[in-house]
Amino acid sequence: MSISFSPLNPPRRLLFGPGPTMVEPRVYQAMTKPVVSHLEPYFFEVVEDCRKLLRAAFGTANEFTLAMSGTGSAGMQTAVANFVEPGSKYAVLANGFFCDRLTEMGRRQGANVARLEKPWGESFDEDEAAEFIRKERPNVVAFVQAETSTGVYQSSKTICAAAHEVGALVIADCVTSLGAMPVDLDANGIDIAYSCTQKGLSCPPGLAPVSVSPRAMDWLRGRKTTPADWYLDLKLLADYYEGAHRYHHTAPISLFYAMREGLVCIAEEGIEKRQARHKRSHEAFVAGAGAMGLEMLVKPGRRLWNLNTPRVPDGIEDLKVRKRLIEWGDVEILGGFGPLAGKVFRVGIMGPLATEENVLLLLEGLEKALREEGFSPKGNGVEAAKAYYAG
Amino acid sequence: MSISFSPLNPPRRLLFGPGPTMVEPRVYQAMTKPVVSHLEPYFFEVVEDCRKLLRAAFGTANEFTLAMSGTGSAGMQTAVANFVEPGSKYAVLANGFFCDRLTEMGRRQGANVARLEKPWGESFDEDEAAEFIRKERPNVVAFVQAETSTGVYQSSKTICAAAHEVGALVIADCVTSLGAMPVDLDANGIDIAYSCTQKGLSCPPGLAPVSVSPRAMDWLRGRKTTPADWYLDLKLLADYYEGAHRYHHTAPISLFYAMREGLVCIAEEGIEKRQARHKRSHEAFVAGAGAMGLEMLVKPGRRLWNLNTPRVPDGIEDLKVRKRLIEWGDVEILGGFGPLAGKVFRVGIMGPLATEENVLLLLEGLEKALREEGFSPKGNGVEAAKAYYAG
Repeated sequence: MSISFSPLNPPRRLLFGPGPTMVEPRVYQAMTKPVVSHLEPYFFEVVEDCRKLLRAAFGTANEFTLAMSGTGSAGMQTAVANFVEPGSKYAVLANGFFCDRLTEMGRRQGANVARLEKPWGESFDEDEAAEFIRKERPNVVAFVQAETSTGVYQSSKTICAAAHEVGALVIADCVTSLGAMPVDLDANGIDIAYSCTQKGLSCPPGLAPVSVSPRAMDWLRGRKTTPADWYLDLKLLADYYEGAHRYHHTAPISLFYAMREGLVCIAEEGIEKRQARHKRSHEAFVAGAGAMGLEMLVKPGRRLWNLNTPRVPDGIEDLKVRKRLIEWGDVEILGGFGPLAGKVFRVGIMGPLATEENVLLLLEGLEKALREEGFSPKGNGVEAAKAYYAG
Repeated sequence: MSISFSPLNPPRRLLFGPGPTMVEPRVYQAMTKPVVSHLEPYFFEVVEDCRKLLRAAFGTANEFTLAMSGTGSAGMQTAVANFVEPGSKYAVLANGFFCDRLTEMGRRQGANVARLEKPWGESFDEDEAAEFIRKERPNVVAFVQAETSTGVYQSSKTICAAAHEVGALVIADCVTSLGAMPVDLDANGIDIAYSCTQKGLSCPPGLAPVSVSPRAMDWLRGRKTTPADWYLDLKLLADYYEGAHRYHHTAPISLFYAMREGLVCIAEEGIEKRQARHKRSHEAFVAGAGAMGLEMLVKPGRRLWNLNTPRVPDGIEDLKVRKRLIEWGDVEILGGFGPLAGKVFRVGIMGPLATEENVLLLLEGLEKALREEGFSPKGNGVEAAKAYYAG
């Protein structure tokens, strides 16, 4: 067997992509704490801390808030496998990659899928979506609050109200919003939300926070069919994480340590303050990008605060720009994919990177890289961002 | 929100249970390495190293060997969701808790389940199991190579041959065997095997190594129905981890770093040498337990090397003994459950704990705790284990 036993030596990048993003040293250190048994009372204390702190980040009083032992995609599957029954009607608001994945997962559960479609990069007018829901009268409505493929934020108060009017439950993908911008489950009326740890929570990937409203838990406890998915069965997980602590699986202890530490960091800063910090970084970046002459894919007011999608200027190859950024300062941004391949950059500014210093660094590098690829900036992006911060 | 922000401070236990078990400091340190993108070439180098090293531990040349982004239970679900089709015939050799779980997962997939049953703690005579398979002619046979609930090792060469004779694929649960005793997928003829990281591999929990034979991959590529499970769909995962590196999910990067480090530790020691070390610790423990007058649940030759199940002596409460061990030296062993609740101890001796020093420490503590609970040992367990090591 030819195998190199060289020590682990991953590149040290400034992760300005859509995630995974930067992890604080104290979060890494949390993972060096000794593993305990998955039935150890101390572990359940850690879990309870995480549940309380997750409720604050999700903006909910939902008792049933916890983390699945898988990545964000496992969170999506948890929502669909538990709440979309075979033969049920399932409505998806489709305007990006993750809406298509929600669709695919629903089909695999044997649901009848109805889709309201928008081009990637647009958001839904809530009244239009509400009308669609009243017409279709589905059992479940799914939408993406924070579309990682496009940078769109979807508001949802009217959508959720329409769903509840026809007796439907609402699933929202909050993978990119949690920890970085308002998720507001209760204020919006979202019944089932899932997220990940490696974006707005600034932790390593591997857990999927999930929150379920009492209304949805009531429905689930009355569900007659058994979900095909045993691993992500929320009723079994409720027995493990709540009350009885009945063995289900061996939770990834070290990742729970990391998530608790990351959530404590967020609580120490204050969730509103953290969200405001992301909003400022976003506005500073948009000011800088705009000064350079870059257009944003998404309309103002519909944009994610922590994931920006400036269009790639005509005649410029996004991959070449991204390579130059890596060479210049180990700055990693990502490109678009699907219908947006080559058309947008995906620039995540979150967690430890959402500061003036880092936004200016990023704009400096981006301007340099674009220039070297033949793009002539209209104005000075760094100065525009500085002016934003000063203003 | 009343939440304590006290620093993480888990108890430091000697984990002599069935898992999670002790993790080497260098494996903990691996998780402090910077997270990189899930599409970063360096990450795929780490994955390739893991795949090579896992093949050696599994005893296989299977190209399709990798780790699922979930715990051992996700590994079980991967095997069942991908290979047990709705309406297919699924035979389970049932002699413990995890065989029942395999049964439940198969039912959830809509399979027709046939079970050959044995009391917990017994193993199957291979000829008897082979006869059952020839009679039932299932599409898939599942058995547990290493039963974590009982401490039984199941040999399988004849079982697999009978399955192949009738055209069935064979699933084996290797959750407790991998890294600690021979798994030998290819020599046994096992088609689909899954395991975990927190037992014989001495890593934190969170990944599920899986290995699939070319025969089973051929079947899967020809499968006409789509698995309900999107997250654990092996065809999609093959596109992510092999060749195209097509985005599927964001793998838990830090856990892959840990697993690579743990597997490198194993490769440095040598897998055969490591297995032999576990065998010696097991034999020393059995010698010591026997000298004290403890009976083993499982017959000689059918026992796991890394998970011992001595019977709880008559009149002794297992929980009280276990509490005393914690108080005495933070030594954690577990009890039995289900039909074995209160009847056996489950004593895992694996990884860093599988040394003479630790076996003697464990026996010393166990003897003391039993004595304090009113049990009179027949002889000196520590001396018997010392004699074993000296002999």
